[in-house]
Amino acid sequence: MEQIVKYIRENERRYIDEMVALLKIESVSSDSGKKGEVRRCAEVLVKKLRDSGFENAKICETGGHPAVYADWLHAKGKPTILVYGHYDVQPVDPIDKWTTPPFQPTIKGNSVYARGSSDDKGQLLTHFFAIEAFLKNGGKIPCNVKIFMEGEEEGGTGSTDKFVENNKDLLACDAVAISDTAWHEEKVPSICYALRGLAYFEVRVKGPGRDLHSGVYGGKIQNPLNAMAKIIAKIQDEEGVIKIPGFYDDVVKLTEAEKKEFASLGNPDPEMIKDLGIPKTWGEKGFTTLERNWARPSFDVHGIWGGFTGEGSKTVITTEGGFKFSTRLVANQDPKKIEKLVDKYIKEICPPGVTSDVRMLHGAYPVMVPIDNFFIKSAVAAFEKSFGKRPVLVREGASIPITATFLKVLKAPSILMGFGLPDDNIHSPNEKFNLDNYQKGILANAYMYDAFGKK
Amino acid sequence: MEQIVKYIRENERRYIDEMVALLKIESVSSDSGKKGEVRRCAEVLVKKLRDSGFENAKICETGGHPAVYADWLHAKGKPTILVYGHYDVQPVDPIDKWTTPPFQPTIKGNSVYARGSSDDKGQLLTHFFAIEAFLKNGGKIPCNVKIFMEGEEEGGTGSTDKFVENNKDLLACDAVAISDTAWHEEKVPSICYALRGLAYFEVRVKGPGRDLHSGVYGGKIQNPLNAMAKIIAKIQDEEGVIKIPGFYDDVVKLTEAEKKEFASLGNPDPEMIKDLGIPKTWGEKGFTTLERNWARPSFDVHGIWGGFTGEGSKTVITTEGGFKFSTRLVANQDPKKIEKLVDKYIKEICPPGVTSDVRMLHGAYPVMVPIDNFFIKSAVAAFEKSFGKRPVLVREGASIPITATFLKVLKAPSILMGFGLPDDNIHSPNEKFNLDNYQKGILANAYMYDAFGKK
Repeated sequence: MEQIVKYIRENERRYIDEMVALLKIESVSSDSGKKGEVRRCAEVLVKKLRDSGFENAKICETGGHPAVYADWLHAKGKPTILVYGHYDVQPVDPIDKWTTPPFQPTIKGNSVYARGSSDDKGQLLTHFFAIEAFLKNGGKIPCNVKIFMEGEEEGGTGSTDKFVENNKDLLACDAVAISDTAWHEEKVPSICYALRGLAYFEVRVKGPGRDLHSGVYGGKIQNPLNAMAKIIAKIQDEEGVIKIPGFYDDVVKLTEAEKKEFASLGNPDPEMIKDLGIPKTWGEKGFTTLERNWARPSFDVHGIWGGFTGEGSKTVITTEGGFKFSTRLVANQDPKKIEKLVDKYIKEICPPGVTSDVRMLHGAYPVMVPIDNFFIKSAVAAFEKSFGKRPVLVREGASIPITATFLKVLKAPSILMGFGLPDDNIHSPNEKFNLDNYQKGILANAYMYDAFGKK
Repeated sequence: MEQIVKYIRENERRYIDEMVALLKIESVSSDSGKKGEVRRCAEVLVKKLRDSGFENAKICETGGHPAVYADWLHAKGKPTILVYGHYDVQPVDPIDKWTTPPFQPTIKGNSVYARGSSDDKGQLLTHFFAIEAFLKNGGKIPCNVKIFMEGEEEGGTGSTDKFVENNKDLLACDAVAISDTAWHEEKVPSICYALRGLAYFEVRVKGPGRDLHSGVYGGKIQNPLNAMAKIIAKIQDEEGVIKIPGFYDDVVKLTEAEKKEFASLGNPDPEMIKDLGIPKTWGEKGFTTLERNWARPSFDVHGIWGGFTGEGSKTVITTEGGFKFSTRLVANQDPKKIEKLVDKYIKEICPPGVTSDVRMLHGAYPVMVPIDNFFIKSAVAAFEKSFGKRPVLVREGASIPITATFLKVLKAPSILMGFGLPDDNIHSPNEKFNLDNYQKGILANAYMYDAFGKK
């Protein structure tokens, strides 16, 4: 490792130059006018992988934007790691809010400013250069590596899920390494071991067959908008507890160790209250804000509609109302099981005099990797060596659906070892990536692959 | 009265011809292109009143469409009755649904089909011709009569309210006679003695200062749409009872006599369920459908909005939601008092973590005339004489705001003695007015004015 560490230190300037070159490619996957740029980026990556010593480097057609694949599988008896990342980027709008052009990477302070720097080209390169360091210094990686880069993570065409399912053998692995997330706080390295899932529903509540005058009918019949509010109010109680019978049955309880780890990050409430301009934070009784967001299911109405919404007053009893809501799920809740529970419950609580119709629009499985997992432990040790402090083990409240796909299809846990910072402005103007995290990220990954080889 | 009755019987043909002539005038008050027709109608009425023997017949400028006024005040010591009606009519859209042209009155079966026939020109003429019969047969009416016809009841410019307030002396009276409503059922004459009032509100529930991702924030903070549903659900309970403290304090209780009278009309539920396509009727426990609509306050959400309402799924926690609702009020509830109670209650029940903003958009007082009132009793007796059966004393669930104005400004009760039928299609294509009810209505009114003179 000594030689590897030395090599990585000596190549710092080149790593920056090569990242800058990659960031100049306008690989905006949601913009059909940039289709050629997306493909060019894939081709540049294939060449890069081939030149570095990777084998089988190739473009993979997915039906949507192409994916890129390469491997090095000569560490006999050692684990196989799938490196996953995406080379496509978000659109740049609003362009006038950028202080430097999004595709002319600019170094200011200790960061490079460009679209895709933190999300995800810069982070993806930390793996590429870590592995390259092994290949250029002896030609051997301590473990087997497959690298798989998709080109439509931001475009959301969903063809990557299908590609994974149709290429189980090609992508078969023991663990997936993903650097596409940010640290909880600057200066506090973190590794994420759990993500929430999702069950997203649309409900319609139907009343009379035509709009009615509330003077002539008010009091005679159930109003579908009154009824809709009653349904929503019965899903979650005043203490933030979801009242759907059986809903919490499969929830994995937070351990005391996890609670302690989360608490070590401090109380995020004062800053959030100020930032959002709200009177207070709120949620399920008995849990802290981070616990509620990371390790407990939540219930949110995303949209609601019905009746007269124009200016002034119209005394109508309308025919129907609707709302969209989701519950974020935690390990080991199953969106398919939740769908049945929600459907049954809403039928039960639907007030007299109206009918309801429930449809699940979207489901995503939660994922959780046991923190005593060998790969997680190796990543933690590698972070500590490179950054000089033990990373905090965190969860996230959101979903990264591809991790559920990897778990389901490849039976492989994902290690979410991001190097982004909370203020990297991903998906916003002035996206940036910290160059310290870049360099130390390459080093951390090198330590990690070295550790993987010791299994 | 014998001579009057005979005269009315002999003039049946003329009454129809004169109604037909009036119905040809296209006095659509909401159509600015018909402004001239509205005024022409007022002028025709002034001439008609003058020719019949009324005094002081004149156009009254209101700021909007003109009103028409006339009087005959020579019944010394006798009560003064204000006859109120409107000569303007609803628009005719959708015109293609009319089987005969709306302004070419057509007699089919025992009805005249034309816009304004039942609402309100035909009904208004029942008073005009009843009084004319007295003036043409001896030149004396048994009581004092003021007739006041507005030209913008359907247009809703609201200048009539102001006109009444500014002309208290001109319109001063002991009671107001209004024929602008329909019977509860065909063949069942009815007189209405109570109308509901209204308190109409708009509420906004405010959460975070910007749209948030429900993965990143779900469980951390109160969602304004969740909170909004909880507020609505707390206004009315599962048994249809409004939970605002003090809300029912001033409600006049239904008497056993009223309950019996309403029950005599039969159960409207089976037909309503079929007509509206609903599973069942519903409302405040312990009351029948008619009791709930006529004599109990009701609570209806008229419109609700917030967040993402497009196709598919978006996992947003939005910044705010809103809803409009009203409570229909019954005697002796006061919309101003209700406004205070609603405002206080919503502040109290507003869930933690969001703020709410309540605004009353509109209020209307309920009205109720004691059924042992001399004028009501006279009208009941007159109906019985003309139609051969005692009219049912009913209430209505809707509001007629001008009746509250008459009560407040003139201290005069309104007697709502309509001659319309439930299937008259007012405000719809193929409006009609039954010619039996027209002729017997003129006669009933003559009996009524005769009875008024006996006070």
